Amino acid sequence: MTLKAQARLREAEVIIGYRIYIDLIRSIVRPEQEVVDSGMTREVERCTMAVERAAKGQNVAVVSSGDPGVYGMAGVVLELVRQLGVENSVTVEIIPGISAAQAAAASLGAPLMHDFAIISLSDLLTDWEVIRKRVEAAASTDFVIALYNPKSRKRVTQVEEVRDILLRYRGSDTPVGIVRNAKRGDETIICSNLAEFTKEEIDMFSVVIIGNSHSYWWEEYLITPRGYEL
Amino acid sequence: MTLKAQARLREAEVIIGYRIYIDLIRSIVRPEQEVVDSGMTREVERCTMAVERAAKGQNVAVVSSGDPGVYGMAGVVLELVRQLGVENSVTVEIIPGISAAQAAAASLGAPLMHDFAIISLSDLLTDWEVIRKRVEAAASTDFVIALYNPKSRKRVTQVEEVRDILLRYRGSDTPVGIVRNAKRGDETIICSNLAEFTKEEIDMFSVVIIGNSHSYWWEEYLITPRGYEL
Repeated sequence: MTLKAQARLREAEVIIGYRIYIDLIRSIVRPEQEVVDSGMTREVERCTMAVERAAKGQNVAVVSSGDPGVYGMAGVVLELVRQLGVENSVTVEIIPGISAAQAAAASLGAPLMHDFAIISLSDLLTDWEVIRKRVEAAASTDFVIALYNPKSRKRVTQVEEVRDILLRYRGSDTPVGIVRNAKRGDETIICSNLAEFTKEEIDMFSVVIIGNSHSYWWEEYLITPRGYEL
Repeated sequence: MTLKAQARLREAEVIIGYRIYIDLIRSIVRPEQEVVDSGMTREVERCTMAVERAAKGQNVAVVSSGDPGVYGMAGVVLELVRQLGVENSVTVEIIPGISAAQAAAASLGAPLMHDFAIISLSDLLTDWEVIRKRVEAAASTDFVIALYNPKSRKRVTQVEEVRDILLRYRGSDTPVGIVRNAKRGDETIICSNLAEFTKEEIDMFSVVIIGNSHSYWWEEYLITPRGYEL
């Protein structure tokens, strides 16, 4: 958490967020602050409440995990301010944070030292064909790739399709790191490679980072060289 | 800055970094801490000193701007630990931070709500042909694109080449945001579009964010819809 995020949370009169993310910040919530948490898939409802409260003059903090600007709630909040026509009574400030790929990267070593693509495999809001083409584009031009939402209980084959696309462009020993609950208390790290990684346990709390053609494992570190002469 | 970065800086006996980045943290340096700053292009020298000091038992903090794991010093430090063979006497901890694209995104609104590619246009360490192909791949599959090091005094035509590639795939009114010194004291923000943005002032302290086919400007906000029904 950044110093600014902490300061803004402390100033807020109302804190709104997904229950699991609210639980991560309980320790800094003061008793006089109102907390509104709710379950998954209720993002729009929560953000609507936040914007309506703000329009009435309250200081509201919407909590995202990671960076609210990376697949987070920043966009929904702005779209709702626009849709509800309250731009004259609401000021939105977006506080960037540490996105899951960065937290995972820091735990793995230094995989994001070169150009990288961040791709969510969730096809709830995006056609799988669009996602698949992005994977192929990034695979064919040697981007380091970070996969968000790589696998869920209902969606299990996509990550295998991604592996097959990657294997057409990169060696089977290309390093792959899987980090679950990156930088939270119960983080787990798996060191694998392109041929094998789909056999590991992967879920919606995991980020998968696939190295480029220069990446390598050294000890337990995943390193992508930047290209400096050492 | 994150709480953890601040804590680690306070614990450090020696703080090493590029002069401009050290200046950003002067206010939290204590008099008894040793500070070693030096100029640009001396990254390897600084990191070598840091690793050597750590191998002698000192608590050393290497300061990067943004996220040390994103084109930063994390990789060089790990590679030097390996090369100097001091892995048994040095423990490396990488503290993720807010990379320039995220800081710029937060100032622009919410452009990174969907799959995105981060590409450095600096061809000092990477062949331009590799960079060009990555731009084309990301352009052709509708990634939001963040350009680091878009232009320097000596390197001025690349960003125009990028514009021409993008224009083959996206409309000339595709929103483009340029943020200079994102989230530093003297930040400047330019709202532009794909046809016009290269006419603006762009330099090595700028990040250029190019929207995907759904991105739009609303008021002064650059928004990429995530796809939720509102």
